[in-house]
Amino acid sequence: MVSAKWVGIIVHCTSRISIYLFHRNAHPEKERERERLEEKKEMEKGLKKWHFRGNEELLAVSSISMRGYLHILRESLNKQDERACINLSHGDPSAFPSFQTSIIAEDAVVDALRSRKYNSYSQSVGILPARRAVAEYLERELPYNLSAEDVYLTIGCKQAIEYILAALARPNANILLSKPGYPDYDVKAANYHLQVRHFDLLPEKGWEVDLEAVEALADENTVAMVIVNPGNPCGNVYTHQHLKKVAETARKLGIMVIADEVYGHLSFGPNPFVPMGAFASIAPVVTLGSISKRWIVPGWRLGWLVINDPNNILAKTGVVDCVKACSTLSSEPATFVQGAIPEIFEKTNEDFFSKTKDLLRHTAGICYDRIKEIPSFICPYKPEGAMSFMVKLNLSVLEGIHDDMEFCTKLANEENIMILPGRAVGLKNWLRVTFALEPSTLEEGLARVKSFCRRHTKKL
Amino acid sequence: MVSAKWVGIIVHCTSRISIYLFHRNAHPEKERERERLEEKKEMEKGLKKWHFRGNEELLAVSSISMRGYLHILRESLNKQDERACINLSHGDPSAFPSFQTSIIAEDAVVDALRSRKYNSYSQSVGILPARRAVAEYLERELPYNLSAEDVYLTIGCKQAIEYILAALARPNANILLSKPGYPDYDVKAANYHLQVRHFDLLPEKGWEVDLEAVEALADENTVAMVIVNPGNPCGNVYTHQHLKKVAETARKLGIMVIADEVYGHLSFGPNPFVPMGAFASIAPVVTLGSISKRWIVPGWRLGWLVINDPNNILAKTGVVDCVKACSTLSSEPATFVQGAIPEIFEKTNEDFFSKTKDLLRHTAGICYDRIKEIPSFICPYKPEGAMSFMVKLNLSVLEGIHDDMEFCTKLANEENIMILPGRAVGLKNWLRVTFALEPSTLEEGLARVKSFCRRHTKKL
Repeated sequence: MVSAKWVGIIVHCTSRISIYLFHRNAHPEKERERERLEEKKEMEKGLKKWHFRGNEELLAVSSISMRGYLHILRESLNKQDERACINLSHGDPSAFPSFQTSIIAEDAVVDALRSRKYNSYSQSVGILPARRAVAEYLERELPYNLSAEDVYLTIGCKQAIEYILAALARPNANILLSKPGYPDYDVKAANYHLQVRHFDLLPEKGWEVDLEAVEALADENTVAMVIVNPGNPCGNVYTHQHLKKVAETARKLGIMVIADEVYGHLSFGPNPFVPMGAFASIAPVVTLGSISKRWIVPGWRLGWLVINDPNNILAKTGVVDCVKACSTLSSEPATFVQGAIPEIFEKTNEDFFSKTKDLLRHTAGICYDRIKEIPSFICPYKPEGAMSFMVKLNLSVLEGIHDDMEFCTKLANEENIMILPGRAVGLKNWLRVTFALEPSTLEEGLARVKSFCRRHTKKL
Repeated sequence: MVSAKWVGIIVHCTSRISIYLFHRNAHPEKERERERLEEKKEMEKGLKKWHFRGNEELLAVSSISMRGYLHILRESLNKQDERACINLSHGDPSAFPSFQTSIIAEDAVVDALRSRKYNSYSQSVGILPARRAVAEYLERELPYNLSAEDVYLTIGCKQAIEYILAALARPNANILLSKPGYPDYDVKAANYHLQVRHFDLLPEKGWEVDLEAVEALADENTVAMVIVNPGNPCGNVYTHQHLKKVAETARKLGIMVIADEVYGHLSFGPNPFVPMGAFASIAPVVTLGSISKRWIVPGWRLGWLVINDPNNILAKTGVVDCVKACSTLSSEPATFVQGAIPEIFEKTNEDFFSKTKDLLRHTAGICYDRIKEIPSFICPYKPEGAMSFMVKLNLSVLEGIHDDMEFCTKLANEENIMILPGRAVGLKNWLRVTFALEPSTLEEGLARVKSFCRRHTKKL
C-alpha cells in the first residue's frame, strides 16, 4: 500500500515537493469534497472517533528521498528470478570481499568498546579526543589550523546535512543545490521549509558548476550553495582553480559554501582531491564528511560537520551557535565509535587507502567501458572519483521504454538489477550507475544490463 | 557567550517556548527597532555583506532542553574546586564500577563487528533479525503477538520521540504531556510546532496521572498523551489498574498513548513493571524503549519505537506510514549494534538484571534517607523505579536562595555538585535528584548537599 502511494506521489510530482503541496491547496472546493469523502470512508472503517492522523507532509517529503526510490526499485524486483539481485544503485560496497575495511579500524572499535570507557552518553557535540582527531586529520591539507571546537560529530554525513540546513532555515531563506545532486539536500530543505533553487553541473566541462547560473539564481535571501566533491552522483573531481572560483562566487554573492566531502580523498584520476576548506578565507565553508566511504564502514554511522572559517563569520552571524543547538536537540554517534576515531586516524596506513583507490579505478574503468559499448547509453564523462557516475539514456533507440523510471523498474523486474533513475538525483532520463562493486559481480551486472538493452532496442 | 544567551532565554521564558515566540511577534514596532539596531551592529562588524544568519528559533528551542540546563550547570562549576564533580543530574551511571554492563552484551557487539556482516548501511527501519528480537522481547509480557514489522529501530529513545512527534505533527494538533515530565517531549513538540498542554502528576498519589485534568485539557485536536513509566523524573511505577484507566481515558478522548518505557523493567518497589502495550486493545499504544538503561549502555545508541495496536488503528490513520517516512528521512543506529541485539536479548541472564535492580533499590534508599534528613527539602515520595526522583525545595528555611535555578547554580559553584533544577522538568522550585551512582560517590555527594544546605539555612 505504501509503495503504491509513493509511486503515485512521485509520478505526479515532476518538480518535487512544491508541486505536491500546490496540488493540495490550489482547489479549496475539491479539497473540501476530498475531505468529505475521506470522512465518510473513516466512518465506515470505525476510525471517526480517533483524533490523530499521520502527517502527510512527511510522506510527500520522504517520497523524494533516495530511499524512496530505492524502495520502489526493490518492490519492482522479480522474486521468481533465481539470479542474485545486483545493486548498481548505492554507494556502499562494504558487503563485497574486495571492499573490506582495515583491520586497524575494526580493532580500534573493539578496543574502545572493551575499555568500557565509552558506554556513557557523549557530549552532544561529540567527545573531545575524537573532535580533536578529526580537526588534525583535516587540517593537514589546509592553510590554517582547525581546533577541536570547530568539529561537530554526527551520525554519518546525513545528520551533518540536517544540522547545517536546520541552522540556516529562516523564513524566506533559499539555498542553491546542484542538478544533478544528492537528493538528501532537497529532502531536508523541504523538511525545514528552506526554499531550493537548482544550478546545473555541466557534463561537457567535467560536471563543473555553472557559476553564471549560480549568480543568476542568487538574491539577498540566498544563504548557501552546496558543492559535492568528489562528486556524487557524477564521479567528478574538481580542480583547485574551479574550487577557488566557487569560493569567489560565494563571496561575491554573500553566501557560504557547504562542502559535502563524504567521498573525500576517493579520487583516482588526474585531479587530486582538494578540500573546499582551503578557500575558507575567501568565503566561509562548512565541510561535511564521514568515515563511511574512505574506510568503507557506512554502517558505523560516524560523520562530522566542520567549521572552516578563519575570519569567524559563521560565529558572528550565529550559525555556529545554531549548529551547537542542533547537536543539543539530536542524538550523537555511538560513543565507543567516537572513542575509536583517534586510533583509526592515526594508524590506518596508506596501503589501505591506495588499495581502495586502485580498486575503484579498476571498477570505474570496467563500468565505463562496458556501458559505452551499449547503444542505449551516452556517457559524457569517465568517472575519476567517488563511487558512481551519470549516464544518459538514448531513448530514441529503445522500444517500449519512455523514461528513466520505466527503464529502471523494468530492468529490476527483468534482470534483478537495481540502477537509480536519474530523476532521483535531479536529471530525468539519465541513470546514476554505481561502480563500487566486486569486479566479478559488476561484470555480471553489466552483462545483464547489456542483454536487457539489446532486448529493448528498436529493430531497424 | 552562548551560555549567557541561554540563561537569558530561560530566565525570561517562564512558560517555555511559547512565551519566547510570543514576545518576538507581539510588538512589531519594537521588533523593527530591534532589527535596525542589529543591522547597525552588523555593519560595524563587517558582516553586512553576508546573507546567512543562524536560525534563532533553534536556539530558543534548544534552551529548554535538558542539555541546555546541564550546560548551564557545567558552566557554574568552580574549576578551582579540587574535589571531583559529582553529577546527581543525569540518568547515566555507566561510568561507575558497580554499574557496568553485562559481558554478554559486550561480547555480542564485538562478535557482530568481527563478523563483518554489519558494516553496511542498514534498512532505514532497522535490520530484520534485530526488529524480530525486539518484538519477541516485548511480546512476552503482552496479551497479543508483535511482529518484526511493528518495530522501528532508533538511535536511542531520543530518536523514537522524534519519530512519533513528527508523525503526529499536523496543523493545529496538540499533545498532552505530564508536569513534571521529560523535557525532550516539549523540545521536540516545539521543534515540530505541535502545541503542548500539560497535565499534572499527583505527588500525593504516587505521581499518578491526574486523569480528570487530562479530560479537561483534551479537545478534538488532541492527538496523544505521553506517559513515562517507570517514571522519569519521579521514580514512580504505575499499577496495572492505573495504566488501564489511562488507556480507557485515551479511548474516551479518541487519542493514542505514547508510552515511554526507556526505564522499562527497572522497578524495585512493590509495583511490578507493567508495559502500557498490555492495554493496546483499549487504545492504540506506541511504545518507546531502548537498551540504554536496562543494559546500562546509553552510549551504544540503540532504541526502538513499537506499534502496539491489535486493532490496526495506527495503520489505518496513516500514523504507521509516517513513522516509516521518518525512518526514511533519518539515520539509523550503527548496524553492528543492531546485529548484536538478538544475542543480547537471548543471552543476558536474570542475575544481571536482578543485580542492577538490587543496586538501584540500595542507592534509592540511601538517597531518600539522606535527603529526608535535610530540612531544606520535602520528599513526598520514595522512589520505586528508574533512576531519579523529585524533591521539593523548602525555600522558607533557606537564606539567599530564591528559587531552584539559584539553588542548583550555587550548589554547582560551591560544592561541585550538579542537580537538575525542577523547572527543567516542568516543576519550578523542585529538584530532580538522580540516585543511580556508585554508593560511595552518592554518599559523598549527599554529604556535600547537606553541608551546602546547612550553610544556607536561615539562622533562627
